[in-house]
Amino acid sequence: MAARATLDSVALLASVSRQTVSNVINSPGIVSPSTAERVRQAIAELGYRPSRAARQLRTRRSMMLALRLEPDRGGINGSVLDRFLHAVVDGAQQASYRVVLYTAADDAEEVAAYDDLLAASDLDGFLLTSTHHGDPRTAWLAERQIPFSTFGRPWGAIEQQHSWVDVDGAAGSRAAASHLLEHGHRRIAFLGWPAGSGIGDDRRSGWRQALREAGLQVDPALDVRVADELAAGRDAATALLDLPDPPTALVCASDSLALGAVSVSRGRLAVTGYDDTPVARAVGLTSVSQPLVAAAEECLRQVLDVIASPHARLHTALLQPTLSVRSSTTDLIAFPHRPLTDTAPRRRL
Amino acid sequence: MAARATLDSVALLASVSRQTVSNVINSPGIVSPSTAERVRQAIAELGYRPSRAARQLRTRRSMMLALRLEPDRGGINGSVLDRFLHAVVDGAQQASYRVVLYTAADDAEEVAAYDDLLAASDLDGFLLTSTHHGDPRTAWLAERQIPFSTFGRPWGAIEQQHSWVDVDGAAGSRAAASHLLEHGHRRIAFLGWPAGSGIGDDRRSGWRQALREAGLQVDPALDVRVADELAAGRDAATALLDLPDPPTALVCASDSLALGAVSVSRGRLAVTGYDDTPVARAVGLTSVSQPLVAAAEECLRQVLDVIASPHARLHTALLQPTLSVRSSTTDLIAFPHRPLTDTAPRRRL
Repeated sequence: MAARATLDSVALLASVSRQTVSNVINSPGIVSPSTAERVRQAIAELGYRPSRAARQLRTRRSMMLALRLEPDRGGINGSVLDRFLHAVVDGAQQASYRVVLYTAADDAEEVAAYDDLLAASDLDGFLLTSTHHGDPRTAWLAERQIPFSTFGRPWGAIEQQHSWVDVDGAAGSRAAASHLLEHGHRRIAFLGWPAGSGIGDDRRSGWRQALREAGLQVDPALDVRVADELAAGRDAATALLDLPDPPTALVCASDSLALGAVSVSRGRLAVTGYDDTPVARAVGLTSVSQPLVAAAEECLRQVLDVIASPHARLHTALLQPTLSVRSSTTDLIAFPHRPLTDTAPRRRL
Repeated sequence: MAARATLDSVALLASVSRQTVSNVINSPGIVSPSTAERVRQAIAELGYRPSRAARQLRTRRSMMLALRLEPDRGGINGSVLDRFLHAVVDGAQQASYRVVLYTAADDAEEVAAYDDLLAASDLDGFLLTSTHHGDPRTAWLAERQIPFSTFGRPWGAIEQQHSWVDVDGAAGSRAAASHLLEHGHRRIAFLGWPAGSGIGDDRRSGWRQALREAGLQVDPALDVRVADELAAGRDAATALLDLPDPPTALVCASDSLALGAVSVSRGRLAVTGYDDTPVARAVGLTSVSQPLVAAAEECLRQVLDVIASPHARLHTALLQPTLSVRSSTTDLIAFPHRPLTDTAPRRRL
């Protein structure tokens, strides 16, 4: 069998440059008809078939999707969107798509970037992350009928019709709190962000729900709201332990907060984190794990669906997280008369 | 002052579609001269100037660079290339460039991806990471005179002429070993990867150098070679502590190995890691920190230089790492008669 045909071998056979071969594939209008014909014959003769180029030729699509790369905050939880990115790029490549990255400091910059990207290149669609209350980005894209889907639901904007995938954050913290209840804890605090963040409020609601289902009162002193930083987690855990009636367990809205908390409370507080980061695995922190690969695959499926049939039904998907149980919650039993009931390394909710 | 001109407002004024405006900017050959003229007048009248599109118009470049996204190994050290990616995308955007991602399982797939990418889109250049012995990728690109630069030196291929930036790995482990020597340690082991990896051998050589400079023999029993995994670090540290004459300190080639080591040796071995990951910061591990933002900026500068003047002089840069000192080396003094001499949180080499 002959060696795999390449752009070079096509160019050689047709006696043209690589660029001309690329032009015939991508912008046939700018190549003279006789040259284009010679290149097409060489492509056919050699069986040249880079999957993307061939698909592009057939569909007249750019086979490019754009995704914003969120700033690297140097933190512990930042790796979540990097893991989502990896899954998106893998999945896109399997569908013969490439991913173009851009950055933006805020929503206004991001909308300007859309305009810039659409002017400068053909793009088939956008994947958005970090949706939030009053998000202007989805309206901008929807008005212009530009295909997109979001990782993150349309918080507070139910009139905003678009495809989205999200992970059920309330179910995640409910599972964490239930796990602590099963281990005998009754004074369970929640450490999260100030109200107003869709994601943060969602995670807090799961903790409340688990306590209510267990017939427990929600003590306002145990509902703590701080910035998402390790130091804030440390200080908040210290303050909770200084209460006259301190909690024995703590559900945190992030691994950053949880790590701060365990650094001062090992042996005194059972602690759960959120996002199952490499740090959580390294230090033995029980943490809520988001199905990021499934989320990326669903998000891609949605945007490719809109690209294929712009007037197709929109899709939404709320995926379920799992709890990765580790020593930060199993080493400490609140009430010694109750046995450890769940030490499996991971369980479905 | 008028609102910022957009692709939409240009399209409206010129009575054409958004796509036609984009075509005038990107593929003027396929738009009729009279329409193109009308669009250009609208662009001028409204002062429409998306920086990338304008630059593209002026330079006839795609303003796109390609970078391979390495697989997410779910590990601790994997975040290093993600941090490099963030710095590349930020720097590229400041130079009006976008970054297109692709994935590849091995060198052959990566070379096939180059061909595919070049056929399917105009790309101005490539940024390569993870160069290694016998790397076929740089030769492929150089033969075709495609602009590129690499994060990683051309290991063992000094005849391979191309621009590159790298971090001095030997200097990093030399600094780690010197720091341990200053704290009174004399039996200092090295935990690294099997010989043959350019990066691994480079890091090992710095440890040897520091010992020799201190007039110490290199004990082969303290030169340990294992796979780059947390469990391997744990087992290796256990075996070292079981030696008749165990070491008091351990220089590791990665944070993964170091974390495995500290999990069994706290209080018995002073341990240094490599790459200053979020995990190292969270658990107080002294670690070598690579200047990833500087490396990304230099790598970008190099490839943009080659794009601007293909026959310009090639550039190479070997950047110096720093040591982030934390409790994993300062809590343990090998010889109590020697005081702690360096507890600064970070120092220049």
